[in-house]
Amino acid sequence: MFDSSHVNLPTLRKLAHNLRWATVPPDVIPLTAADPDFPCPPPVTEAIAKFLQDRYFSYGPPEGHPPFRESMARFFQHKRNIPASPAWILPVDSAAFGIYITCKAFLAPGDEAIVFDPVDFLFRYAIEAADARAVAHPIPPGASACFGKLEQLITPKTRLICLCNPLNPTGKVFTRSELLELGRIACRHNLVILSDEIWSDIVYSPNTFYSIAALDGEIRDRTVTVTGFSKSYGLAGLRIGAVMASNTEHYSRIFDASLHQSTVHGANILSQVAAAAALDDCEGWLREFVGHLQAMRDSCVAGLNALPGFTCRPPDGCYVAFANISGTGRSAAEMRELLFTKAKVAVVPGLPEWFGPGAANHIRLSFATSGEILQDAMNRITLTIRNL
Amino acid sequence: MFDSSHVNLPTLRKLAHNLRWATVPPDVIPLTAADPDFPCPPPVTEAIAKFLQDRYFSYGPPEGHPPFRESMARFFQHKRNIPASPAWILPVDSAAFGIYITCKAFLAPGDEAIVFDPVDFLFRYAIEAADARAVAHPIPPGASACFGKLEQLITPKTRLICLCNPLNPTGKVFTRSELLELGRIACRHNLVILSDEIWSDIVYSPNTFYSIAALDGEIRDRTVTVTGFSKSYGLAGLRIGAVMASNTEHYSRIFDASLHQSTVHGANILSQVAAAAALDDCEGWLREFVGHLQAMRDSCVAGLNALPGFTCRPPDGCYVAFANISGTGRSAAEMRELLFTKAKVAVVPGLPEWFGPGAANHIRLSFATSGEILQDAMNRITLTIRNL
Repeated sequence: MFDSSHVNLPTLRKLAHNLRWATVPPDVIPLTAADPDFPCPPPVTEAIAKFLQDRYFSYGPPEGHPPFRESMARFFQHKRNIPASPAWILPVDSAAFGIYITCKAFLAPGDEAIVFDPVDFLFRYAIEAADARAVAHPIPPGASACFGKLEQLITPKTRLICLCNPLNPTGKVFTRSELLELGRIACRHNLVILSDEIWSDIVYSPNTFYSIAALDGEIRDRTVTVTGFSKSYGLAGLRIGAVMASNTEHYSRIFDASLHQSTVHGANILSQVAAAAALDDCEGWLREFVGHLQAMRDSCVAGLNALPGFTCRPPDGCYVAFANISGTGRSAAEMRELLFTKAKVAVVPGLPEWFGPGAANHIRLSFATSGEILQDAMNRITLTIRNL
Repeated sequence: MFDSSHVNLPTLRKLAHNLRWATVPPDVIPLTAADPDFPCPPPVTEAIAKFLQDRYFSYGPPEGHPPFRESMARFFQHKRNIPASPAWILPVDSAAFGIYITCKAFLAPGDEAIVFDPVDFLFRYAIEAADARAVAHPIPPGASACFGKLEQLITPKTRLICLCNPLNPTGKVFTRSELLELGRIACRHNLVILSDEIWSDIVYSPNTFYSIAALDGEIRDRTVTVTGFSKSYGLAGLRIGAVMASNTEHYSRIFDASLHQSTVHGANILSQVAAAAALDDCEGWLREFVGHLQAMRDSCVAGLNALPGFTCRPPDGCYVAFANISGTGRSAAEMRELLFTKAKVAVVPGLPEWFGPGAANHIRLSFATSGEILQDAMNRITLTIRNL
């Protein structure tokens, strides 16, 4: 299901935006935004097609379509070992919006929130949109989390710890003991934990993913978990994610921040139907997808480490390779430019605006494509780098 | 296409929220939220089904799917006589969100915006979310617009005039000369006009709808037009609307306020495909729908005027009847309660939080249903009121 014959390039060239096929010249391979090159699992479109039959798209309930909330709760119960309640699950426009409204719900102007560095820009963006301040805790690629140092960053203004697990862009999957330490710190200082778990299905053996909300009741009660369907199932264009609170007070704050009650925002009914089908009926597909990605990871990382001046640790999770290029003597922006113009491969440079200052001297490559396309891209990169 | 055999009550009882079938007891007829009881036109689901075939839902462009923007521009050009450009059209989550971001784009804290009274609550909601102040200009049901008095409300802090045309809940369709007068006032005082035209397809002969942006270039250049697909095609659950600016500066402000660039928000790709099909392929369906609604209007208004203490002017547009009940000696809230519990018909009371103070002593009834269901509801209301 994941070879080149299943990658529909003409369609991707029309539809795949956000730095991908539809936005680059036809001779460029985009290993940019983390969005798979494969079509979504068939049960997703089958569920949408079935829903279409009645031709009704009335106003949905602001708190979400009950079957979606139930599927999501079963996922958290059975796959994440969290005693989840449908009543505390809110479908939202995207995981990004879930992060945004959680920050809006828990941060007042002048408050502080701790984010890792490097990490995807959306935490900082959401924190600053709430007129609060992001305080960075460095977790360099390959390093352990060192949460003792994180605790020193906590001030009387700190309200929130933003956990991204697995951690984009470095691919770190936090161990159970790291999460327990982080959870204890949050309990000691009465902080809310925002756990972005959008990558939690994409974890490579022998690593194991743990939800921080699964650890114990005291940690769970202060955790808001956010997830989405773009990474696991390729549904970015359907604009669907979910936020799960662990108590009624947190849920109410998040629901109020969502503006769903006024109808200004709301979750699309077809997207909720699609996401429920992804959760309920695509387990086998997802297992195959992750197996394929593990092979792509190994091939991509090996290729990168064979390049002079490049080093890359195999990510524990996520389908991005985060390569240190400091040995090349070029900056991330220069390397991005070189690979784009000479190798005809688009990558994401480790710019502070994308991932924080800790991403300097790194580039990020998505490998959620076929072996043939990935090999083509790696050959192009190798040829360009070896001929420097 | 619009008799009771086409109203699928079992589906509506599962799916139609926002005070409608899924939220009332099974023996109650909801004439509440303005959302049709009919399935959407077949070309809409056919277009979605066709798009499903490739199974790709990649990230869409933040500024919108090009075919949607082109369909919307053609609509404004050919149906509204506006020289629209696709480059200034932004698909958004809903018309409500379109209003919300337009207020966010043009209002600073402390600014003022003029709204009509009565009018749907979303203008005031969006203005207040921008920390600005809504200043009400009364347009009682059946009254002419009296924009001379509106001009007296303008202060140095006024930035925006919010026009709802056709005007929900009174059903007023503004005449060309009224719009021209309003446009001239906006030009004289350098104000932006936010024209909510979500109801503009639902206009009864002999009334004619004019877009204020169609009047002349100077008025157009200060107008932001918002529309949606819930009223004309029943697509509320697909969460899709559009905002059209008239120049690059306005478009940029609105785009920035949308948060589409960061992916926090964005328009669902299937909904854009659905909406483009509605615009391109459903002209005949829409004509039939409006014809049916005109018959429903006449029957509903006649029924209301036959009730002791009720008076109701036939709306020029919209599919809601806005009945004055002051002759009954009961408040809107009391009448809503009476009709709900005794007549088993749900209506929307004219509460200030829904429509402003000008809605006092009125109830609003949606008549976007079949003749049989509407007759049943009117019979129940008549029996209850006559037996008081």
